[in-house]
Amino acid sequence: MLRPSPALLTDLYELTMAAVLVAEGKAEIPAVFSLFIRDLPPNRGYLVAAGLEDVLAYLNRLRFTGDDLAGLARLGRFDPAFLDWLGELRFTGTVRAVPEGRIVFADEPLLEVRAPFGAAQLLETWLLNQVTLQTVLATKSSRCRRAAAGRTLVDFALRRTHGADAGMKMARSAAMVGFSATSNVAAALHYGLTASGTMAHSFVTAHASELDAFRAFARHHFDDPVLLVDTYDTATGVDNAIRVGLELKAAGGKRLAAIRLDSGDLVALSRLARSRLDAAGLHEVRIIASGGLDEYAIARLLAAGAPIDGFGVGTLVGVSYDAPTLESVYKLVEVDGRPVAKYSPGKATLPGAKQVWRRPGFAGDVLGLEHEEGPDPGAEALLVEVPVAPAADAATAVRLARDRFEADWAALPQEYQRLEDPARYPLELSPGLRGMTTLSG
Amino acid sequence: MLRPSPALLTDLYELTMAAVLVAEGKAEIPAVFSLFIRDLPPNRGYLVAAGLEDVLAYLNRLRFTGDDLAGLARLGRFDPAFLDWLGELRFTGTVRAVPEGRIVFADEPLLEVRAPFGAAQLLETWLLNQVTLQTVLATKSSRCRRAAAGRTLVDFALRRTHGADAGMKMARSAAMVGFSATSNVAAALHYGLTASGTMAHSFVTAHASELDAFRAFARHHFDDPVLLVDTYDTATGVDNAIRVGLELKAAGGKRLAAIRLDSGDLVALSRLARSRLDAAGLHEVRIIASGGLDEYAIARLLAAGAPIDGFGVGTLVGVSYDAPTLESVYKLVEVDGRPVAKYSPGKATLPGAKQVWRRPGFAGDVLGLEHEEGPDPGAEALLVEVPVAPAADAATAVRLARDRFEADWAALPQEYQRLEDPARYPLELSPGLRGMTTLSG
Repeated sequence: MLRPSPALLTDLYELTMAAVLVAEGKAEIPAVFSLFIRDLPPNRGYLVAAGLEDVLAYLNRLRFTGDDLAGLARLGRFDPAFLDWLGELRFTGTVRAVPEGRIVFADEPLLEVRAPFGAAQLLETWLLNQVTLQTVLATKSSRCRRAAAGRTLVDFALRRTHGADAGMKMARSAAMVGFSATSNVAAALHYGLTASGTMAHSFVTAHASELDAFRAFARHHFDDPVLLVDTYDTATGVDNAIRVGLELKAAGGKRLAAIRLDSGDLVALSRLARSRLDAAGLHEVRIIASGGLDEYAIARLLAAGAPIDGFGVGTLVGVSYDAPTLESVYKLVEVDGRPVAKYSPGKATLPGAKQVWRRPGFAGDVLGLEHEEGPDPGAEALLVEVPVAPAADAATAVRLARDRFEADWAALPQEYQRLEDPARYPLELSPGLRGMTTLSG
Repeated sequence: MLRPSPALLTDLYELTMAAVLVAEGKAEIPAVFSLFIRDLPPNRGYLVAAGLEDVLAYLNRLRFTGDDLAGLARLGRFDPAFLDWLGELRFTGTVRAVPEGRIVFADEPLLEVRAPFGAAQLLETWLLNQVTLQTVLATKSSRCRRAAAGRTLVDFALRRTHGADAGMKMARSAAMVGFSATSNVAAALHYGLTASGTMAHSFVTAHASELDAFRAFARHHFDDPVLLVDTYDTATGVDNAIRVGLELKAAGGKRLAAIRLDSGDLVALSRLARSRLDAAGLHEVRIIASGGLDEYAIARLLAAGAPIDGFGVGTLVGVSYDAPTLESVYKLVEVDGRPVAKYSPGKATLPGAKQVWRRPGFAGDVLGLEHEEGPDPGAEALLVEVPVAPAADAATAVRLARDRFEADWAALPQEYQRLEDPARYPLELSPGLRGMTTLSG
């Protein structure tokens, strides 16, 4: 497994710019950077903020090791004074952020870093990487939550997420928005999630017959089995599963927990399976569907009345197929107490350290300056100062994020939750921000 | 930084199935699994095989540590006999694979694992994860190579790849298909790549004026600078860069290497910049473009005659925006010497261990059985046995992969390289595979 030093997971220009700032004597000037998402992708009415825990853990541990500095020296681009500066570098700034699990919108800072300019700039690449990925995945997963309308959701994505890090973050992000379990064993252990899994086609094909495979699996599996019924012919697979289900029932002890459908017409097959299971008296056996599912497919299946009790979602959610990225940026908004901005066409930024105020019941947000008053007494400030301390227990952090998500999710009006063509949430600029005219240049 | 044990980066069902196989006494039966891609995504005429080095390193080091076993015991799903079996597990099988950098097509095995069934099954999740990601990225990057038609390409993707692992693999995959450099410092050091970078808007906004920023950067940057000219007004930015370029020229020593355009109408702005640079006698100063570029955008810019010398490509390539995944599968094809298959609708597999034969000049491939003869004397067998040994030097592995890519790329007919609606490459089944009728079930 590849283990680059986190400090080196950065774009070269962050280092070369820092070297220039150090040479200029400007590296220690106080600065504020703001991380936000410019526009939401199509079919996204909101975002679920995620990634902050990893950002804070990174800031807490940020240092360039001797090996890192030796590697950088080999690049032949940095003088010894700068490498010494890097070797001494620690994060000494403060972070104001929207806590994980909260629902946010375009143009709202997810976090702001106040720190010496040289250090604050260096963080850009890694902060964007983690916040973008995790916000993408938490948002995509929350859409499955909506589509599944209370049915069970399990993360099956690890085999085709973009690498190991994404596989871990997918499991965590999904749990944060209400998935019941993950197939990812490392993530289940690390984040204190429920691990879940069924069986694969190879298990069936490795046995002399499907019935043999089902019996062996039911006999030796540690608890109530889920049987995969589509390896050869799904109707026959359902009958074989029912046979094993009845054998288990007759024997006492384990019960057939569920069957899994992984291909074909899931509406027709789930109906066929439900009807045969019920006819056999196996009313309690659940039907799980998987195979190329995402929020759109789940919504279609349920709209068509498919009697499916749970969904295993994988690749399309794990890579956020319809919106694999966000227009996330990390922009300098204040330097030496002076608000600054850029004006590039289509990429202009608003100057100044900010606050986001939310009226109760998602009745509209106001983007204002950090020290400006809120729009009215009931409005809540979303950006709060968060300690740059050693990471809390990983399981606790997920649980807290999930609690925040549940509270926001329950309050978020349906029009913003819609899977297609959601309404655009109202965000106004505060008087202070509208009146901001003292720009850099 | 998160460091899950690689052995635990697996779906739970791989472990629960292995536990059943161990209990049944079937874990040591010889088996062959085949990893291939079912169908190519839209606009993909070929794939660049990648990920094998990481697969081999993983197999070479595969073991469940005491911590891993303790974690698994906590799940309460595995008996001590199985955990002992896992503790003893090493990869003892063989791997036949298409070497990295080779061009392959749908339905062709990228690798086949022959190993005891229990162990071979366990590998599924991680092998799919790495081969899928890296093949996606190498293929996407190779399309930029085609679009850029000889111009310089640099990987700027790290800030929005799906996590750290994807960022590293993006830099490596891009280098494999001919990118000149990467902005990713960790990847440059680990894989022996050229690190490259310019400057950010924040550097400009942090200074009293753009001209001040350019002068400071030019003075203190370790070598010939690239100046980012679009922070405020691009035409003025070009003029400021020219002024600094002329000052450098007059002073001797460093030269202005390039300007970078990151927004706006890149055709018009690159023409304006080229014409002003030339008028100032700065013919040697190059123009670099970045900002939301992918193979389609690069092709459009060059078709419109934009005088751009190099491209920084980021997010859209790093997440493979138009095709973020592949239909990769890892299927049991032989067990105990017996060819097996599954018949799930739309997901049927062909039985038996295989070989892929390629006629010279990409005149068509033949998918056959492992020990079958090739279709004709000139055909090349693509799957070769590869040693499961400690990883070679990382830089050497990239260079060898790039050599293979260059050879295949030079020979691959244009019709398969097309960015849109590429021709479908002919793949036939061998007589042996067509005649295969002894299936499992």
